[in-house]
Amino acid sequence: MSVTIGPAGGQKFEGGVVGFIGLGVMGRSLAGHLLKAGYPLVVYSRTRASAEGAIAAGAQWAASPAELAPRCRLIFTMVGLPRDVEEVYLGPSGLLPKAAPGSLLVDLTTSTPALAQRIAETAAKRGILALDAPVTGGDVGARNAQLSIMVGGDAAAFVRAEPVLRLFGPTIVHHGSAGSGQHAKMCNQIMIACTMMGICEALAYAGGAGLDPQLLLKSTSGGGAASWSLQTLAPRILQGNFAPGFYVKHFCKDLAIALAAAKEMRLDLPGLALGEKLYRELAAAGHADDGTQALWKLYEAKLPKQN
Amino acid sequence: MSVTIGPAGGQKFEGGVVGFIGLGVMGRSLAGHLLKAGYPLVVYSRTRASAEGAIAAGAQWAASPAELAPRCRLIFTMVGLPRDVEEVYLGPSGLLPKAAPGSLLVDLTTSTPALAQRIAETAAKRGILALDAPVTGGDVGARNAQLSIMVGGDAAAFVRAEPVLRLFGPTIVHHGSAGSGQHAKMCNQIMIACTMMGICEALAYAGGAGLDPQLLLKSTSGGGAASWSLQTLAPRILQGNFAPGFYVKHFCKDLAIALAAAKEMRLDLPGLALGEKLYRELAAAGHADDGTQALWKLYEAKLPKQN
Repeated sequence: MSVTIGPAGGQKFEGGVVGFIGLGVMGRSLAGHLLKAGYPLVVYSRTRASAEGAIAAGAQWAASPAELAPRCRLIFTMVGLPRDVEEVYLGPSGLLPKAAPGSLLVDLTTSTPALAQRIAETAAKRGILALDAPVTGGDVGARNAQLSIMVGGDAAAFVRAEPVLRLFGPTIVHHGSAGSGQHAKMCNQIMIACTMMGICEALAYAGGAGLDPQLLLKSTSGGGAASWSLQTLAPRILQGNFAPGFYVKHFCKDLAIALAAAKEMRLDLPGLALGEKLYRELAAAGHADDGTQALWKLYEAKLPKQN
Repeated sequence: MSVTIGPAGGQKFEGGVVGFIGLGVMGRSLAGHLLKAGYPLVVYSRTRASAEGAIAAGAQWAASPAELAPRCRLIFTMVGLPRDVEEVYLGPSGLLPKAAPGSLLVDLTTSTPALAQRIAETAAKRGILALDAPVTGGDVGARNAQLSIMVGGDAAAFVRAEPVLRLFGPTIVHHGSAGSGQHAKMCNQIMIACTMMGICEALAYAGGAGLDPQLLLKSTSGGGAASWSLQTLAPRILQGNFAPGFYVKHFCKDLAIALAAAKEMRLDLPGLALGEKLYRELAAAGHADDGTQALWKLYEAKLPKQN
């Protein structure tokens, strides 16, 4: 079932060449969906090796965002950190100085609401539309086109982007003006951080009580504790699979953004503060490049020694 | 789909009269499922008014657990606090002094692992079988017979109880010896406490950022933050419905049990400690008889005043 919440409009996919910048774990899957849908695609990624799959599947390579920009009417970006977003949009080889008036830029990265606002304002001055459109659903959701997409920015831009965003997932929500997609994503990350904390603590308790953790997942996955993380990430913990679906380093960045924004709003969010602290400790302990399920490592390291 | 994990055996429902003690929000639904399945039922509840629905549907009334015990081959209990469990099983008008040898007692209450062990040992000395079998899935799960049931105790007792437990829900897991069902339930409650904290903090953040909370539920309920609580309890928060599916006072009791057990295991579980503290504050602020979703009230009370 496909659900769009926002201004109605575009029923048809926009024509023309599409650009995609950032071919990491998730970007790669999304670029694949665009190619499969028949879009002529131009790609750029910081390391060219990441683009090889897309190029083999028919995408063109661009040497920089600035070189990619004028070739496309619609450009998606999905990079790592806010400073990467800033460089890709506003830097000397960035998109905004070179994008064609009337073109539409959609940032799928989780980044700061303030930067999303700055990009939208800078773009508007040049007759370019920009949306912040972070996603949730993880590597699995990206691969299976089952993402939920939280969009902030101009309503007319939303109407144009929506039919293409539908290739990435069934749930597309327009949250309001520029930056509001990022704010919604912060809410999402706050929930995930607390849920992951609960899962790791439940597994630590289970170990202490001598319970079989596999049985615990069976008995708890269908009740009041059911969650995407319990279903998807807890089994990876039990398999010892800490490969990144979503990087600890990126999650740390998200939680720091959320915590800073909450402070600005004078909100007391102790669960977020604790989650941010634990993930920061986890990154400092050498797990920055693991997936978020590696939070378990922090608890495992603190388990009392068996005699 | 029905999943049983544990020793195989009983394919048929056990015959004979069934007892049910404790007809609160959840017990009432479960007694209803037994009546619908055709079991002759004897009920007892601390307040007789709670039993009126069951009596109207054909159940017999007993004046005390001691009076109920000898009339039944299989007895379920679902009461409030560990001290209630203790009284119902071990007190002067309790089950154990009067239950028939060979009968089977199944406690569905969330209680302490140590008490579950004590009951099982006392029962065994009299040739009675006792299981701890706390459930998860909330009021909705009880009504729709969609609970998951975490069972601790003797394997032969599990085999006898399982076909009847199937009337309450599709997932029935034997976790091991007496008390292990309660330990599994503690893991479940740890996860729920952290998840609820994340949901309330996300809603507080959404308010601060000026997001429509209904839209937030739409965009986050299908992604990485998806959870039973987000799906089931967050909409109640937005409707201002704080009626108990599961009481704050009972959840406080569960979290205190979990925290005490974790301390005994020398585990450092900061998320549980924070959740326990917040729910204790919530109860102290006058919300003990609300549902667990009332945690929102604690955050709401701390929101910065709008100018």
